[in-house]
Amino acid sequence: MSDFRENAHFLADWIARYLDDPSRYPVLARVRPGEIRDALPRDAPERGEPFERIFADFERVLLPGVTHWNHPGFFAYFAITASEPGILAEFLSAALNQQAMLWRTSPVATELEEVSLGWLRRLIGLPDAFEGVIYDTASISTLHALAAAREIGVPDVRRAGLAGRADLAGVRVYCSEHAHSSVDKAVILLGLGQQALTRIPADAEFRMQAALLAEAIRADRAAGVIPLAVVATVGSTSSTSVDPVDAIARICEHERVWLHVDAAYAGVAAMVPGCEWILKGADRADSLVVNPHKWLFTPFDLSVLYCRRMDAVRQAFALTPEYLKTSEGEAGVRNLMDTGIQLGRRFRALKLWMILRHFGAEGLRGALAEHMRLARLFASWVDASDQFELAAPVPFSVVCFCLKGHRTDEDHSRLLDAVNASGDVFLSHTRLDGRYVLRLAIGNLRTAELHVRRAWDLLTESAALLR
Amino acid sequence: MSDFRENAHFLADWIARYLDDPSRYPVLARVRPGEIRDALPRDAPERGEPFERIFADFERVLLPGVTHWNHPGFFAYFAITASEPGILAEFLSAALNQQAMLWRTSPVATELEEVSLGWLRRLIGLPDAFEGVIYDTASISTLHALAAAREIGVPDVRRAGLAGRADLAGVRVYCSEHAHSSVDKAVILLGLGQQALTRIPADAEFRMQAALLAEAIRADRAAGVIPLAVVATVGSTSSTSVDPVDAIARICEHERVWLHVDAAYAGVAAMVPGCEWILKGADRADSLVVNPHKWLFTPFDLSVLYCRRMDAVRQAFALTPEYLKTSEGEAGVRNLMDTGIQLGRRFRALKLWMILRHFGAEGLRGALAEHMRLARLFASWVDASDQFELAAPVPFSVVCFCLKGHRTDEDHSRLLDAVNASGDVFLSHTRLDGRYVLRLAIGNLRTAELHVRRAWDLLTESAALLR
Repeated sequence: MSDFRENAHFLADWIARYLDDPSRYPVLARVRPGEIRDALPRDAPERGEPFERIFADFERVLLPGVTHWNHPGFFAYFAITASEPGILAEFLSAALNQQAMLWRTSPVATELEEVSLGWLRRLIGLPDAFEGVIYDTASISTLHALAAAREIGVPDVRRAGLAGRADLAGVRVYCSEHAHSSVDKAVILLGLGQQALTRIPADAEFRMQAALLAEAIRADRAAGVIPLAVVATVGSTSSTSVDPVDAIARICEHERVWLHVDAAYAGVAAMVPGCEWILKGADRADSLVVNPHKWLFTPFDLSVLYCRRMDAVRQAFALTPEYLKTSEGEAGVRNLMDTGIQLGRRFRALKLWMILRHFGAEGLRGALAEHMRLARLFASWVDASDQFELAAPVPFSVVCFCLKGHRTDEDHSRLLDAVNASGDVFLSHTRLDGRYVLRLAIGNLRTAELHVRRAWDLLTESAALLR
Repeated sequence: MSDFRENAHFLADWIARYLDDPSRYPVLARVRPGEIRDALPRDAPERGEPFERIFADFERVLLPGVTHWNHPGFFAYFAITASEPGILAEFLSAALNQQAMLWRTSPVATELEEVSLGWLRRLIGLPDAFEGVIYDTASISTLHALAAAREIGVPDVRRAGLAGRADLAGVRVYCSEHAHSSVDKAVILLGLGQQALTRIPADAEFRMQAALLAEAIRADRAAGVIPLAVVATVGSTSSTSVDPVDAIARICEHERVWLHVDAAYAGVAAMVPGCEWILKGADRADSLVVNPHKWLFTPFDLSVLYCRRMDAVRQAFALTPEYLKTSEGEAGVRNLMDTGIQLGRRFRALKLWMILRHFGAEGLRGALAEHMRLARLFASWVDASDQFELAAPVPFSVVCFCLKGHRTDEDHSRLLDAVNASGDVFLSHTRLDGRYVLRLAIGNLRTAELHVRRAWDLLTESAALLR
């Protein structure tokens, strides 16, 4: 590709134009299932093709299949941002093609990970005793936390496994009924089985009831079952509720059970003055996951696991075949392959470092605070409305709400489809206390008051037509 | 970042210059452990900083810590390439920030994955019955294959797990003594325990002895142990040996045991005329992993799992919480979150698609054949030398060799350090039959005969000085 320079400049312009205003496109892709697949040939070309032809197909065939997570009207799930320094860092990272399995295969990725995770750790107020490691997703971070808990809680599990052991009547992991599905997937993968996961009932504000957790652990222990770990959630996926981490940490300390805090979405909010309370007690947790790719403007993917007992993760996974042995071992060097299931690691720390420097602590706090202000504003409209009502408290940047007056799921679902068909906004839903609930999630840097207002207008207009 | 456009153009120029000649830099980073970390501040800046200042620190502090995987003299581990269409695709992918958990959250990533994996599948000659899915690394691909084997082989494992079950005396996974450490990590993570992994002895050319595999399975079954899976390797990490997949497949069919083929490095070579034999029998495997980020010029990371029984992967992992339910379910849409532990997926298919189109089948075959020619050439020099001798056959692009005349590990290790200190080449080592062995791995698109010649000159000069 002798004309890499030319093509890179072309792409730089295209991306700059795209980022100037992603709202030129409908937020939710309008292609039919199979439409993109069917528009492309069944086989790779025999001869190489010029960039112009490839890019023309990108624009013609692929672009209509993009759901625009960059769109200021993206309010579904957790809204995210590929910030510009993050995009540039990914461009550079792809070119450098670092593979950070060993310190020597990428000293820069290894050490910048340590530095940038130290910066983030102090911003959210976690003690230095927490060592950080970058994974791709929160699912993988939580999996490693629970693998470490299993390593500590089940004697000789690395060698002997779980099957055919007379000494193991059963093992148990606890989380709130509102915890993320990644906890289920982790216990399944770890061979504990889904029945090993006890979901503790929540209170009226969707927070785990610590007293019920204590009871469950006591009862299991009395029955000869080993309590391995508790997962507390700071910012649950449905309602962004915050489990009482402090009370849960006390129980875990008393019971000597691993405490993992899932702060994937909301953990970063701890850097905002007035929000420090959300991580109260987390300093006594064993591990905590926070995802800069969720609400810290980092292009997907970058999840961080902070762990006070990274030795347990290493004990579970470190394994160095001959062909990866090096002479730096003696100098106390970190080899990232020792902290996980994946051998290879790409250079993700670069984007976090560039983002932290570009925005500065001040800029990040300001952006998070503004998202929370917009959410409170929207919630105030809901509160004052005769069509809608709030379905949950709004501690962060997500508003859960529903139609007033015992309307059916079908009504809500039709309403959601109607506003999403506009192309201007994309909201998603969940279920709370059995009710179908709409969610408006704010997290994109381009989202301003006018976009939230547009969502509100669409909702009220469409709701009026429902009657 | 109002000047994104300007910064992107600056970076395009910088990267173009860098890619023009990465050999201006020493291939192996020359920083001391801790040097980068200590050169950076302990805290994130309070105020945001301009791109110029951030990039100046990148060049001054970070760049010296880069080990240049792009360097034409990178011959360690498996040499790789961030090809230019791949880098451009990653730039575009970062900007689009797709998150392909559900079809609707990124129809383009979901369907382009299907299309580009179909292209690759037909290039390497696997039947259409193999469905493909993209993960980050081969470790994760193999983990999913073995999780699916566990799902099939252990009744009710998803719900009941492995612990405290009277019906499970033991379970077993088999691989060659030369299989990759990712197999160990997978059995540990899955709760089978490292003792559940039986490593079958290899023959004189480092290939699994199928007869010994058959014996081991029969003996285990007689002892009440459940044989879950066999991992055959096509291109083992140390010597790139090829297990007899055809014979192993026959055994697995007869014993009804899951066969997973680890072709992470060498699988792509099956597209080269004359190399089709390497996947003989793989059409009867249950799953196969191949890594375009290894020897198909794709920036790290992109690993592909092809599976004839993707239903088993879905059975093990599919789990849809309310907030991710959509109405497209009925149309037979693929939701990528159902095929794995990770909920989120970034848009990796874009780079594979752009690479396949840029090079075309012809270009890819030619590049792979040239790497194999260079390896054979180097091997012929070794063969004709009175200083060195080959330590293994050379079926692909890796040459294993050592000093003649029973030289010590220490001699080999000093030789390796001497050539690596040149800055012109980076080789690694392994151990075969107890011997310390040097490895020269060719896989970078910039590597030409002159670079291989330079490695040879450095080796022979340094070896002469050893005496």
